[in-house]
Amino acid sequence: MADLSKRGNVEPFHAMDVLAEAIRRRAAGHPVISMAVGQPSHPAPKAALAASRAALEHGRLGYTDALGMLSLRQALSAHYQSRYGVSVDPQRIAVTTGSSAGFNLAFLALFDQGDWVAIARPGYPAYRNILKALGLNVLEVAADAASGYTLTPDNLEAAARDAGIRLNGVLLASPANPTGTVTGAAALKALADYCSANAIHFISDEIYHGLTYAGEETTALSVTGDAIIINSFSKYYCMTGWRVGWMVLPETMVRSFERIAQSLYISAPELSQIAAEAALGETEELEQVKASYRRNREILLEALPRIGLNLASPMDGAFYAYADVSRFTNDSMAFARRMLSETNVAATPGIDFDPIDGHHTMRFSYAGATADMVEAMARVENWLKVL
Amino acid sequence: MADLSKRGNVEPFHAMDVLAEAIRRRAAGHPVISMAVGQPSHPAPKAALAASRAALEHGRLGYTDALGMLSLRQALSAHYQSRYGVSVDPQRIAVTTGSSAGFNLAFLALFDQGDWVAIARPGYPAYRNILKALGLNVLEVAADAASGYTLTPDNLEAAARDAGIRLNGVLLASPANPTGTVTGAAALKALADYCSANAIHFISDEIYHGLTYAGEETTALSVTGDAIIINSFSKYYCMTGWRVGWMVLPETMVRSFERIAQSLYISAPELSQIAAEAALGETEELEQVKASYRRNREILLEALPRIGLNLASPMDGAFYAYADVSRFTNDSMAFARRMLSETNVAATPGIDFDPIDGHHTMRFSYAGATADMVEAMARVENWLKVL
Repeated sequence: MADLSKRGNVEPFHAMDVLAEAIRRRAAGHPVISMAVGQPSHPAPKAALAASRAALEHGRLGYTDALGMLSLRQALSAHYQSRYGVSVDPQRIAVTTGSSAGFNLAFLALFDQGDWVAIARPGYPAYRNILKALGLNVLEVAADAASGYTLTPDNLEAAARDAGIRLNGVLLASPANPTGTVTGAAALKALADYCSANAIHFISDEIYHGLTYAGEETTALSVTGDAIIINSFSKYYCMTGWRVGWMVLPETMVRSFERIAQSLYISAPELSQIAAEAALGETEELEQVKASYRRNREILLEALPRIGLNLASPMDGAFYAYADVSRFTNDSMAFARRMLSETNVAATPGIDFDPIDGHHTMRFSYAGATADMVEAMARVENWLKVL
Repeated sequence: MADLSKRGNVEPFHAMDVLAEAIRRRAAGHPVISMAVGQPSHPAPKAALAASRAALEHGRLGYTDALGMLSLRQALSAHYQSRYGVSVDPQRIAVTTGSSAGFNLAFLALFDQGDWVAIARPGYPAYRNILKALGLNVLEVAADAASGYTLTPDNLEAAARDAGIRLNGVLLASPANPTGTVTGAAALKALADYCSANAIHFISDEIYHGLTYAGEETTALSVTGDAIIINSFSKYYCMTGWRVGWMVLPETMVRSFERIAQSLYISAPELSQIAAEAALGETEELEQVKASYRRNREILLEALPRIGLNLASPMDGAFYAYADVSRFTNDSMAFARRMLSETNVAATPGIDFDPIDGHHTMRFSYAGATADMVEAMARVENWLKVL
């Protein structure tokens, strides 16, 4: 048999491996609490479920336009107006098969083999893995306390100079996974301006928008016309398993993205698009869900430091606590596996997010039920006492 | 603003452009009949819709294992046993977000930048576009009458020699789009053996399995252990818009595919996986749908040559008639646009499938309702008379 490719030899997404093990344990009857993946335990909004049921009545669900249903693109345009006061032509909006498709499309449309793209370290591991699989070079820039846990013109310049490379792209998430960093308007504008001035593509991952507990939440659309915006219905809208997201593109790029999407994805799932359109207006239900995250966050903010797991970053947005576990281990993957098998609490090893410093960090997702958070912290506390 | 990438500059999938125009015309009140995309007009099987409704009751749809729900993988394994008499370990089956994801995953996992992959010309345009976007070289091998409208060791060897290259991969669909070619067991085995002997990855696209009207349908699994099988619920199971398919992989490749899928797709939509599992057993309903394709096929087999559009290939499987329109045009895209605007019948220009000879061919999908086929042929007949 012929060999597999070199570029396909990417790191596993360890959170997904932990999830698979958690699913196996749960199926075997263990009382597993999953804090491993960034997945709301709340179902999709009621209106989304009702719209889905209505669509199933006729059942004829087909390919949509590659860029998505026009009515959904129009609804997203209206969302930008009402939520941010930003005017966006629906023609600039592309519906995608989750933000996963958004990243893949952006990387293919913007970058050629060998180009350099900067991401924050720690950061979402799929960035790094998709970039590498597509033959791109990844510049991981330490987003530490000194730089406000985010990317800045300064830390980008310094990292590019140290590496002796010219950057072709910068990808920033705000609120960020796993750090919870919320990058404010001024900092975001400085970053976007730096990219525009240096012919660097700026990709703004806004998937955790709506989930900010401290600081101001800014869409890159309000500070630049050049950015590529990636967003999704997975997080705020509680629709992970539906695989539907969107992008906002500079007008000149739309056709290029459309051509690639036609061949690589055909279209996002139609039922998910119908459900997403219905979900957009469900602010009241979704703000209640957010209030539960806020309670969960308070619980973790209190419990984690108390039981010996200090926070490694701000926790201002998204639904993650990124904790320092160096008192207990220097092998976060082994720690995660042992914690799962001995306490039935699943969380994600830091090596997913940070190949350098992540062996002594763990990420705990607090998107689950509040009672589960309380129970999980109690189990981990007791376990750490005897460790 | 920085430039877009060179590799992202792929051809549009013209069928999708025609679909977009057809959707616009239909929305504007025109009586459009779409024979443009390979999309059954029949809804998903009733059992699939019922399973979806049941899942919406709790509504908590999340990420599944990256390789898919175990119960669906087990059901697919049982399907291979009952349908083909082939034993396949469920662990070798990966559920994908449509066959589109299957191709992307296979190309990334198997090939490095600059590798050569052979496909049939005419053939499914997304093959070519995805390969190019991923930095791979495409060897288009004429699958004409002389070679039985398929790929053979002989035409592959000759084409590779002419191009002065060594092949790294071969991708064949049977039944084929757009030609309808069904490649028999002996020919498939010869091709698979040739690939194995020459360390060439063999990808067998079996998305049109179940839709064969003449000849014998063979899964590559029954002639080789080395092939990568790609399949989907879109065609036989009438579930295009659900975006769910699967692959069967050699055991040694599974983990590599899983790692890439974790980052690029996370997982296929959960509701679609639930529906797909229910669809698998619905043979009676689906065989009735197939019977309607058989009637549609008879209508086109009679009408097309009579109105001046001779068939350009066998039409033994899938649901396409690939017709020679050289009596009327040498610009199939213009022909398609004009036919849509003047008769409200949408079909796909041959340039989608064959950049060399496709300017005088058109593909008509007959997956629609029989009454629509009759009406469409009458409209095209009248239109061609005055053309």
